[in-house]
Amino acid sequence: MRTNRRLRNDAMSIFRAVVDAAQPARAVERHLRLERGVLHAGSRRYRLDRYRRVFITGCGKATASLAAAVEKLLGPRRIEGGVIVVKDEHTVPLKRIEIVESSHPVPDERGVMGARRVAALCEQAGEGDLIIALISGGGSALLPLPVPPLTLAEKQQTTKALLACGASIHEINAVRKHLSAVKGGQLARLASPATVIALLLSDVTGDPLDVIASGPFAPDESTFASAWAVIEKYGLASGVPAAVRRRLEQGVAGLVAETPKPGDPCFEKVQNLIVGSNAQAVEAASRRARELGYRPMVLSTTIEGETRDVARMHAAIAREALNSGRPGHPPLCLISGGETTVTLRGNGMGGRNQEFALAAALDIAGLEGVLAFSAGTDGTDGPTPAAGAFADGSTVSRAASLGLDARDFLARNDSYRFFEPLGGLVITGPTGTNVMDIRLILVAP
Amino acid sequence: MRTNRRLRNDAMSIFRAVVDAAQPARAVERHLRLERGVLHAGSRRYRLDRYRRVFITGCGKATASLAAAVEKLLGPRRIEGGVIVVKDEHTVPLKRIEIVESSHPVPDERGVMGARRVAALCEQAGEGDLIIALISGGGSALLPLPVPPLTLAEKQQTTKALLACGASIHEINAVRKHLSAVKGGQLARLASPATVIALLLSDVTGDPLDVIASGPFAPDESTFASAWAVIEKYGLASGVPAAVRRRLEQGVAGLVAETPKPGDPCFEKVQNLIVGSNAQAVEAASRRARELGYRPMVLSTTIEGETRDVARMHAAIAREALNSGRPGHPPLCLISGGETTVTLRGNGMGGRNQEFALAAALDIAGLEGVLAFSAGTDGTDGPTPAAGAFADGSTVSRAASLGLDARDFLARNDSYRFFEPLGGLVITGPTGTNVMDIRLILVAP
Repeated sequence: MRTNRRLRNDAMSIFRAVVDAAQPARAVERHLRLERGVLHAGSRRYRLDRYRRVFITGCGKATASLAAAVEKLLGPRRIEGGVIVVKDEHTVPLKRIEIVESSHPVPDERGVMGARRVAALCEQAGEGDLIIALISGGGSALLPLPVPPLTLAEKQQTTKALLACGASIHEINAVRKHLSAVKGGQLARLASPATVIALLLSDVTGDPLDVIASGPFAPDESTFASAWAVIEKYGLASGVPAAVRRRLEQGVAGLVAETPKPGDPCFEKVQNLIVGSNAQAVEAASRRARELGYRPMVLSTTIEGETRDVARMHAAIAREALNSGRPGHPPLCLISGGETTVTLRGNGMGGRNQEFALAAALDIAGLEGVLAFSAGTDGTDGPTPAAGAFADGSTVSRAASLGLDARDFLARNDSYRFFEPLGGLVITGPTGTNVMDIRLILVAP
Repeated sequence: MRTNRRLRNDAMSIFRAVVDAAQPARAVERHLRLERGVLHAGSRRYRLDRYRRVFITGCGKATASLAAAVEKLLGPRRIEGGVIVVKDEHTVPLKRIEIVESSHPVPDERGVMGARRVAALCEQAGEGDLIIALISGGGSALLPLPVPPLTLAEKQQTTKALLACGASIHEINAVRKHLSAVKGGQLARLASPATVIALLLSDVTGDPLDVIASGPFAPDESTFASAWAVIEKYGLASGVPAAVRRRLEQGVAGLVAETPKPGDPCFEKVQNLIVGSNAQAVEAASRRARELGYRPMVLSTTIEGETRDVARMHAAIAREALNSGRPGHPPLCLISGGETTVTLRGNGMGGRNQEFALAAALDIAGLEGVLAFSAGTDGTDGPTPAAGAFADGSTVSRAASLGLDARDFLARNDSYRFFEPLGGLVITGPTGTNVMDIRLILVAP
């Protein structure tokens, strides 16, 4: 029992270190440094006195916090002005930057107004100007700007039709980018010839620049032709609004401009810099685990797949470590990132992180010195007040003594109601950041 | 392309080393040694001249080969006689040991006759005798012996009813052991007070002695009460044959003997020794991988879960290794054992190993220097002529150029028909052993 308590405290301590490291302010501090008027961003240097004006813009749930950090770093006087679009109530006080609140995950007209202002800011910036763009998760929905004469409703109708056909997120994005005036690198084109530093807090597996917030400052590999191929693949040529069809047909015919492709001159003065990501979160977890005396072992930052099977494999590795010292000797901290999926089988209440802990609980039942932990770095997990959950070798039997059958709860995806009475929930409240999930398996000697 | 060819050859070489190491003869050689009349088995010593007679018995698909190895080791003159039960056509020439062929996976009356002879051999062995029992996969079906007056048909009917209700294999075994005269340690009771060395070639995850061939020489934790609880749980009290119900009721009432439990004196002179297992196969893979210049990393020998999700996680670890050198730097050979499951979604042709390679193919598509390999050590994989398959970063695109859509084939569980035209199948024919599956992910620098 004492071991279990220590493991739980250690896991919570590691998770706190992860969330701390992923804070927007910390992310900015780690990647941006101002020294004698020179802004060091990643591997590049920007002599601020060479720029006529510095603007701040961007979109995303954590963008207000990113903006506050940049204001603090540069000092308000160095900033000419700016506008950012954030989710309702995701604001912090800013001095020089205007905040537009809009709707997430379903976009609304306030988002369209905000996007127009962001686009206008990029367009009016000139040769001698510097734009610092702050992009974070949710940015795509928060910054909708259909190309006229398309309406937001028509664009949303198209997304819905594609979702209903089972189109992949990549396919849907290829279409959406070609109906938008800002996505797929188009903000970079508007900003050119200004200099752009885009700071990205990534909530996408593998940190692809063209996917995070639909890549407003990143080259787009998809084309009108590939977007149209998606529409045809799902037999939607007459299933999407006429204006959407017309827009894509014009694009295929070469009558309207493509999104900018890799190598396009508009990217010459653009730097996209990942300032926070799941990979960095996993690093933070490794450091803290090592401080606590564990041998950290990162399995992968790009874990995907059905949650319960991912959990079984994590548990199998933990059992192996306990029994044979492979792939590493205890005290061991297995760490993995990325984002799994849950196929809903029942009408339970939970999220992928809690389901991970529940599925793992079954496979580590009875083992001494093993703890499985999973939580969302944004502090939320599905439609529950928890960020995730943890389980150890006693979880299943303690549940049974309360009349709770773990297998039964897993079958109904009812992980929240399983862990709630057991005290296995991780509850943090909103953390102000999002770099996906973190999973830990602690194995004590 | 050259890299892919090398990776493929390396994977095949590692798999051959695994199958070689798992050969019954090699397994016996590794664990049994005869020196100046003393038989060294595991950590114990047996002075053969102290035993009046040495008998050989056992059951399983690889048991004839195990018997040949023991005959060769001891020399035929040292063996008084013996009888083993094997699957049809799984025989090899033996000098002092009789072979009974019976049916697998569905037992038949020949198996019952064979089981009677094995039981009689154990019963007639006395205080000064040594029995070497050779147990391998399939032994449970090959050695059926319902307790009179139960018939084989009644026992099979019970198994079928339990399977139809979705009972777990552990639940089914609890019932079956209490309807049998040999399973669940009962051969050990018959053999007592003779000395027994049981050599087991394990085809079960984690090598539980009471599960391999239903544990004829291992203590049984299940009871008549737990067997009856299973019957009641699935509402089968009146759904099983009357004779079965009567047998279990008598057991619960204490009117017939329980299977022997841990600590029972009948196990005092019994040694159960695992001579071949998935863990040993994984060791052999590690050694060969190291010889070929790879850093071997065993993830687990107890991998279970849905094949395609297990594949995704293996691929995610490979991607991480390629990108960040975690959890190990290339050249890396990730190794895992155990046995996954496949939920049938289509009417395709394949097995869990080929499905693993197909699912992994999708997740490593386009990567250079990664190969995913999975094969059954028995040389078979589902109802196909292949043992497994391999895939690399070019598999999905090469398939596409032949008009084969990998996603489509995976959706239909049609992995055999996917790999057959591509040349990605592993074909070995029957290997004469079975220590479950082996999966390899090779990552070249």
